[in-house]
Amino acid sequence: MNNKTDPSLPFLIRDKNIQLIRQRFDLVPLVDLADEVDALEDPKDILFVFKTCSNAVTAELFSYLSSLTQERLLQLFTDKQIVDLLNHSYSDDVADFLGELPANLVQRILKNVDASYRDEINQLLRYKEGTAGSIMTPEYITLSKDASVDTALTKIRKIGREKETIQSLFVIDSKRYLIGILTLEDLVYHSGDTSLSSLMSDDFQTCHVHTTQDDVVNLFKRYNLTVLPVLNETNRLVGIITIDDVLHVIEDIASEDILKMAAINPLKDDYKATSSWMITKKSIPWILGLMMIGSISTFAINQFESTFQSVIVLTAFIPMIMNTGGNAGNQSVALITRALATHELSLKDILYIIKKEFTTATIMAITTAFFAFIWIGILLTTQFIRFENITVLYSLAWFSSVAQVSGLVASTLLLSVFVAKLLGSLLPLLAVKIKKDPAIMSSPFLTTIMDFTSLIIYFLFANYLFNFF
Amino acid sequence: MNNKTDPSLPFLIRDKNIQLIRQRFDLVPLVDLADEVDALEDPKDILFVFKTCSNAVTAELFSYLSSLTQERLLQLFTDKQIVDLLNHSYSDDVADFLGELPANLVQRILKNVDASYRDEINQLLRYKEGTAGSIMTPEYITLSKDASVDTALTKIRKIGREKETIQSLFVIDSKRYLIGILTLEDLVYHSGDTSLSSLMSDDFQTCHVHTTQDDVVNLFKRYNLTVLPVLNETNRLVGIITIDDVLHVIEDIASEDILKMAAINPLKDDYKATSSWMITKKSIPWILGLMMIGSISTFAINQFESTFQSVIVLTAFIPMIMNTGGNAGNQSVALITRALATHELSLKDILYIIKKEFTTATIMAITTAFFAFIWIGILLTTQFIRFENITVLYSLAWFSSVAQVSGLVASTLLLSVFVAKLLGSLLPLLAVKIKKDPAIMSSPFLTTIMDFTSLIIYFLFANYLFNFF
Repeated sequence: MNNKTDPSLPFLIRDKNIQLIRQRFDLVPLVDLADEVDALEDPKDILFVFKTCSNAVTAELFSYLSSLTQERLLQLFTDKQIVDLLNHSYSDDVADFLGELPANLVQRILKNVDASYRDEINQLLRYKEGTAGSIMTPEYITLSKDASVDTALTKIRKIGREKETIQSLFVIDSKRYLIGILTLEDLVYHSGDTSLSSLMSDDFQTCHVHTTQDDVVNLFKRYNLTVLPVLNETNRLVGIITIDDVLHVIEDIASEDILKMAAINPLKDDYKATSSWMITKKSIPWILGLMMIGSISTFAINQFESTFQSVIVLTAFIPMIMNTGGNAGNQSVALITRALATHELSLKDILYIIKKEFTTATIMAITTAFFAFIWIGILLTTQFIRFENITVLYSLAWFSSVAQVSGLVASTLLLSVFVAKLLGSLLPLLAVKIKKDPAIMSSPFLTTIMDFTSLIIYFLFANYLFNFF
Repeated sequence: MNNKTDPSLPFLIRDKNIQLIRQRFDLVPLVDLADEVDALEDPKDILFVFKTCSNAVTAELFSYLSSLTQERLLQLFTDKQIVDLLNHSYSDDVADFLGELPANLVQRILKNVDASYRDEINQLLRYKEGTAGSIMTPEYITLSKDASVDTALTKIRKIGREKETIQSLFVIDSKRYLIGILTLEDLVYHSGDTSLSSLMSDDFQTCHVHTTQDDVVNLFKRYNLTVLPVLNETNRLVGIITIDDVLHVIEDIASEDILKMAAINPLKDDYKATSSWMITKKSIPWILGLMMIGSISTFAINQFESTFQSVIVLTAFIPMIMNTGGNAGNQSVALITRALATHELSLKDILYIIKKEFTTATIMAITTAFFAFIWIGILLTTQFIRFENITVLYSLAWFSSVAQVSGLVASTLLLSVFVAKLLGSLLPLLAVKIKKDPAIMSSPFLTTIMDFTSLIIYFLFANYLFNFF
């Protein structure tokens, strides 16, 4: 319900108008304000903004800034300022931005926090990116099963504000094993002397610190969770993942898949935060690799040169044959890869998939071939595509040649679309089988294989046809 | 924490073992049980399972079933059973499954619910798919600002269990305008006589019933929301969207983008629920359309036939030139389309994007051309690709010809990769400008344009080179 207010932030900073800057902090959501701060050229201006407001506000604002701005700012901070910032941040936010910083800065920061907090952060930093451990937060409330609703509420009122969520509460036994979950609602619905053990649910999902993000997302979706407890190697509760963190993970996974399917290695950062050099580094190996693999198509054409030299019009249909096979295959790759990513399909569905894709492939191959026969007939008859022919234009023999060329391209497409569909659905499954990401069997990779396959089909058919007649 | 238990459900049904079926309902999460029920062949078996357990449980189980099973089951239900089912379902769940049912069944169902509930469902059915109205739920708690914490808690305890969430509470004035939001936490943290007006936050995000899902997702992400109030045309509160619904929307949007980028019109249902015919219907228009547009490449090759006939080896490099241009362009399309979809970039960033892509394009074009020159030199020198040449093998004149061909392909790639990158980043922006989905300017579409462009560059360069020397 907020609108950005004039005058602009740089203007207010130049005027050192502390009062209006503070007012802006009240009016504009911090995440929007972070965009304005990110846009400031001079780090000293950013520092000025930070000094105008309270530590709790700056800690939150800091977490929204781009990693570049965070780094520039930390270089300017005194040790005292770093301590203030850290004490007002959630430990998972701190672990997040530490992951992006140069090592010397990380050292300086860790030096400035007290021992127990440092342990918490180090613990979070220990888990590999992409695991449940790396996205969990250790800030949640645990209760004992013998406690009553009133005891629980007293504890929540005392320490709840420092925790990431008090919406879900975790009941543990004396050895820190998780034995039940309850919600704030449960407490509200029951009288103060009710024992937690009678309220808590012992039927809940959990994951381990090394569970992949992908599996975490799947648990949230499948069981409509709002929170997921994370257990360590000894099955003790060490953290929780909340649904708002999962939102960002889902988007990141989808982005990675889309980039992989377009033959780019996933970027670590946003588009804006990634340099042209880094984008090139992520893209160029695929371009060059595919070019090398694609040389087999060059080789194939080279081998069949004599066929082309005798019926030169055949060259003109190479792009159409290559593209149609590639497009048809890519559609299957996208459908299957996506269904695998959302866990709708898995490797055990392989027979179902083959059966279904076989039907689809047959229908599509026949339709495409039929359409191509007519379309190429039109292109040749109208002389949009001209071809040298010894007989008289529009004679019976001429029409027979038109039918031969159209028929050749159509039957090539018939077989090539069919193969492309089956290959396009099997390659992602093969990737899963050999424990690779199916998105890697991506469009460009399949396209390159299909180019060669389609060309070979085309040449073999052509050779047969024009030697036979 | 559950494992599926033996014996299998079909076995229990055959034995009419009601007790073990009921036990299964307690042990297995309902969403997992729904998979087992979906797999039952005979609808009568499903009906049997439904009869064994309470109405509240069946209503939830029903919401997890596939739309096909839901439909088969409803056909078998008596009117009484339908009433029981509906009375125990949330109205947004009902609206969801009604949206998938044939009209006569919808009529029969609406006939069986009472008037106020019917209004609620009809209201939800009124909103177009993909809008906030279509995913909101009208089941939330409203409070008056003059109420105290105790009054609020009493109301929650009385009606809260029927509502989708009591985590967020909505304060409205006498005209149903939303004036504040508070959370259950706020109530817990404050004493019973505190007035809600002093607790509630009047600084919140809202959306309208016609807001797109895409914008809803963006609000949730940007402001870390867990709930978003939905206002109608007169700005009155009519529903809320909760974060768990957004999870599924994000996935659906990503799936749609991936399919669009592979030239398939988005499926309405999951892969499994979509027939081969429907998949063909969504895929074939693109295959045929792109084939027709691709005919310009056929035309181009046809026009330059004489060049090919004189230097026949040039034909062999057509696939390499087409693919490399296409791949390079697709990388940019994917990067820009994804950044637009996640709202990292927007149309106003156009100058930034052009500047950045210009740099990337230059680096990549030079790298690719340099690599191609060497690679094709190797292919020709090693005679992996053979070419007819009047001079003696490995003579100076022969090497000069090798350099000519490699140089021709390399300079074609230089220009074509450069154009592909720029085109690949501008086309998605153009789509946004003309208010189309950028994913439509997808890989296959760009590939088809780039094929033609690359071929023309190749032919013009070849003509110039071989007429000149």
